[in-house]
Amino acid sequence: MSTYKAPLDDLRFALFDVLGAEAHCAKLGFADVNRELADAVLEEAARFAETVLAPLNKIGDEIGCNFDKATGDVTPPPGFKQAFDTFVEGGWTGLTNAPEHGGQGMPALLGGVLTELVDSANLAWGNFPMLSHGAVKALETYGEAWQQDVFLKPLVSGQWTGTMCLTEPHCGTDLGLLKTRAEPQADGTYAVTGTKIFITAGEHDLVPNIIHLVLAKLPDAPAGAKGISLFVVPKFKVARDGSVGARNAVRCGAIEHKMGIHGSATCVMNFDGAEGYLLGEPHKGLQAMFVMMNSARLGVGVQGLGLSERAYQNALRYARERLQSRSLTGPKCPDKPADPLIVQPDVRRMLLSQKSLVEGGRLLSLHAYSLLDVAEHASDPAERERAHTLVSFLTPISKACLTEWSIENTYNALQCFGGHGYIHEHGMEQYARDARITTLYEGTTGIQALDLIGRKTAATQGAGLKLFLGEVEAFAKQHEGDAALAEFIAPLRSKCQEWGKLTIDTLTRAASNPDELGAASTDYLFYSGYVVLAYWWARSVAAVNATSKPQAFKDAKRDTARFYFARMLPRTLAHKAAIEAGASPLMALPDAGFGAE
Amino acid sequence: MSTYKAPLDDLRFALFDVLGAEAHCAKLGFADVNRELADAVLEEAARFAETVLAPLNKIGDEIGCNFDKATGDVTPPPGFKQAFDTFVEGGWTGLTNAPEHGGQGMPALLGGVLTELVDSANLAWGNFPMLSHGAVKALETYGEAWQQDVFLKPLVSGQWTGTMCLTEPHCGTDLGLLKTRAEPQADGTYAVTGTKIFITAGEHDLVPNIIHLVLAKLPDAPAGAKGISLFVVPKFKVARDGSVGARNAVRCGAIEHKMGIHGSATCVMNFDGAEGYLLGEPHKGLQAMFVMMNSARLGVGVQGLGLSERAYQNALRYARERLQSRSLTGPKCPDKPADPLIVQPDVRRMLLSQKSLVEGGRLLSLHAYSLLDVAEHASDPAERERAHTLVSFLTPISKACLTEWSIENTYNALQCFGGHGYIHEHGMEQYARDARITTLYEGTTGIQALDLIGRKTAATQGAGLKLFLGEVEAFAKQHEGDAALAEFIAPLRSKCQEWGKLTIDTLTRAASNPDELGAASTDYLFYSGYVVLAYWWARSVAAVNATSKPQAFKDAKRDTARFYFARMLPRTLAHKAAIEAGASPLMALPDAGFGAE
Repeated sequence: MSTYKAPLDDLRFALFDVLGAEAHCAKLGFADVNRELADAVLEEAARFAETVLAPLNKIGDEIGCNFDKATGDVTPPPGFKQAFDTFVEGGWTGLTNAPEHGGQGMPALLGGVLTELVDSANLAWGNFPMLSHGAVKALETYGEAWQQDVFLKPLVSGQWTGTMCLTEPHCGTDLGLLKTRAEPQADGTYAVTGTKIFITAGEHDLVPNIIHLVLAKLPDAPAGAKGISLFVVPKFKVARDGSVGARNAVRCGAIEHKMGIHGSATCVMNFDGAEGYLLGEPHKGLQAMFVMMNSARLGVGVQGLGLSERAYQNALRYARERLQSRSLTGPKCPDKPADPLIVQPDVRRMLLSQKSLVEGGRLLSLHAYSLLDVAEHASDPAERERAHTLVSFLTPISKACLTEWSIENTYNALQCFGGHGYIHEHGMEQYARDARITTLYEGTTGIQALDLIGRKTAATQGAGLKLFLGEVEAFAKQHEGDAALAEFIAPLRSKCQEWGKLTIDTLTRAASNPDELGAASTDYLFYSGYVVLAYWWARSVAAVNATSKPQAFKDAKRDTARFYFARMLPRTLAHKAAIEAGASPLMALPDAGFGAE
Repeated sequence: MSTYKAPLDDLRFALFDVLGAEAHCAKLGFADVNRELADAVLEEAARFAETVLAPLNKIGDEIGCNFDKATGDVTPPPGFKQAFDTFVEGGWTGLTNAPEHGGQGMPALLGGVLTELVDSANLAWGNFPMLSHGAVKALETYGEAWQQDVFLKPLVSGQWTGTMCLTEPHCGTDLGLLKTRAEPQADGTYAVTGTKIFITAGEHDLVPNIIHLVLAKLPDAPAGAKGISLFVVPKFKVARDGSVGARNAVRCGAIEHKMGIHGSATCVMNFDGAEGYLLGEPHKGLQAMFVMMNSARLGVGVQGLGLSERAYQNALRYARERLQSRSLTGPKCPDKPADPLIVQPDVRRMLLSQKSLVEGGRLLSLHAYSLLDVAEHASDPAERERAHTLVSFLTPISKACLTEWSIENTYNALQCFGGHGYIHEHGMEQYARDARITTLYEGTTGIQALDLIGRKTAATQGAGLKLFLGEVEAFAKQHEGDAALAEFIAPLRSKCQEWGKLTIDTLTRAASNPDELGAASTDYLFYSGYVVLAYWWARSVAAVNATSKPQAFKDAKRDTARFYFARMLPRTLAHKAAIEAGASPLMALPDAGFGAE
């Protein structure tokens, strides 16, 4: 049976010892958020995740969501609604939202922690509250006064939930192709007509109203991506005074049968002249969509992290409990019929890969969340801008690497169980199936990779990378004389130098052949991710050495960092070689050469 | 909807142009097996796989096997029995078995092809006939005359099926711990009592009798792995005259709920004083088990290959059909709303990884099967011995790499579909779930890795590796002056040199610390696999250049080889670094440091 215990020790270490969460909050004006309050939030969130959400994870997978074809109603798995009510009562849905909209005004940094705990405990359930965040963000940024008045409070409080309706059957990545239309009506509203697919939490009975944010084209729209507008389309119509009216002409047509996250309702949504309200300017919908998307992408990265953490915990427990064979160097538990799996070097390799990616990945992710706080709350505009550039750069790395690593981590965790991992009852195979969605939705890994090397690097002359490298170099300089860190700082510096050179070389090649960007993209993404993690492991050792933590905790950080540098970071060698091989090995083969139909 | 077309062109190329199947058969005394007959076998097997098995793959996943708790009966998915009857009528079950036992006496090389076609079409179904092979092999090798007389013909003809009953709830890898007992009876039979789990095809209604090969301990057995004996335990008792008697005391207690291969019956088998017949010598059961296991391991490798092939075909079709976005270098299909995915370099990267691993992997696998033929049929004992050593060395590589690559290939194939890949109806997620068993059963990847570096390398002073390197060097010498091959042969030679040195260095370290073997094992396995594949890609180019194939076919092989050398082979850099990092980064962290419970 799969278990879950919130990793509070490591979360506290990451927040307070590495990222300096107290100073962060004080500096940015989160006056109330001191160590004591943050600790209380952590503990309460952990309790909720462990005792309310985690027990519903397996049943959510087994029973899934139910779709009533006759009514179009969707019923999430048993217990999901009660858990949602508890979550709402606890004020969790608005943890990081502005107090003027009913939020608790906490930093995004703590929001990132909450997301991890929720997603470790029950990823499918976590999708119901998660999607509201994007809707809130878009409304805050682009909403007219009445739209903010009417929609924000119920979304922030969790009285209603939100969705993002982007994808259509024939277009996902390429939204320029979308067909959903919005016809202006005499009363200033729009009649929205079209079919959207893969709509997470598109229909359910957890709350009485669902606020869809829908991309559609106005009649006079320019062709392609520049002709897309964004509309608010509620399940029940909402008047400008906030009064809820009749059922709108939007209905769930089906739910998808998926590999995993069975407890998450993935809906086909049919809009049949549904009443909608234009959000933001006409034809500027894609821009608004990216506002929703960016925070959602960090959130999906955390889903990968959360699954990895839980899978690791269970693999570790099993590796300690399961007695099988003897250590290669002679019996370690001669009084038992066999030694536990954890004495085996190759089992340790699988466990340490997970541990180093989880603990390092946690810092990659929380750092990005902390930059969201800086970008929004720093008093200095230059500092806000700097944080914005850096988090934009780190978002595709965080999303794609944490989710790809969740594939690897849940793979390794399952593998530790041997054949037992393949059986449903142990829970490990569910994590692997659930993890599989994370590299697909909110932009596949390939899309993140293009975003990183294209929009976030080539298009900015490497602005984000320069900031990041500057941060690393400042850290390296600061600890130049520290003998305990030398073994990490030297290779980190050299990798950073190489990263810069690889970037320049690739962009130079791409100047004459844009396919070079696509050809390098995924390997460049992974390369970047592994170097970023090396930085966080070096910082972890520096941070832990500065604390009064027990020696065992310090040793564990140092040993895990050593493992990371010795056995994970060298993956950059393969990625570098692939990047340097360039586009020609990918583009030479004509289409027909790939094989017959 | 997932489709399947047998890759006959590439199979023919592998068999006849690369591996020289005609000369192979002629030399080993398969007098009737000429090109024409082999082609006929291929085409007939392809027809069966495409038209009978492939259409049952999805329904097998959806409906799965049914277990009747009251009777202990297991019913495979609809259509499985009819397909099995057709398979038996076609004489396929005994394709490679000896004519004196009713087999068709074909080479193992063709058996490997049949296995690929079956497993591409329907992996779960393929498990029902597959397990008989091990039973036949064990009976041929260790059976007394009456046992061979009574059991072999019905197993070879497919009138009955066989199983391998090894695993128990508390032991899989470490069979020395097993608890199943066999008590000698006055009539010379044994009463077998115990519980076996994960028994593939342990119970079903495809045939009237099931012959279990069961590992158990005699009352006077020495402790551990040296006290295990092997027993034949039929579902219905069989007398020495071959007459089938009463139902035996063996019964299916449950079937497992698994991540995939739902159509394959994975049974808990309860033996309750069941009548069994000792096979081979007392306490020598583990040795007999390895006879069954080795051919089964090659077979599981082919399962990975088969899934990879089918997943690739579907990813390729989708990448050609799906219109989304434009090429980075400008529209390629300006008359269409968007370009097909296949114009994108990163999509090509995913496709070419699959293609290069599938076509190269096919040669790795078929070469191993061809060595089984040599080991059994060559007239020269030294040649037989040489082939045996080489196939023993290549078996863990083939099993582990082809299955691990099937994880990667089904991952990449699904990823090409974007979110649609996660939906059941496209079939891609089933391949990913089905593939996940292949790195677990018949010995996990970790076990294969230890087998390779331990039993097959350290324990033999690298006998298998030396033979393989000798074969590569002979090939390299033979083509030394061939300008078209220089780009492949030079790096292949250098990798082979490095492989030899890495092996010696690792074994040297291991001499003073056995944990070094375990620490290097998995990375050493992958390193080996990638170099072996480089050899097969170089050989493929050499072979294709010597044919009169269309230029497009030749170009495709060369371009795919170039892709492989440029973008896949460099993975060895990371594996080499991990091997050289040694055991210390894995062993330093104390157990407690991995985390709290």
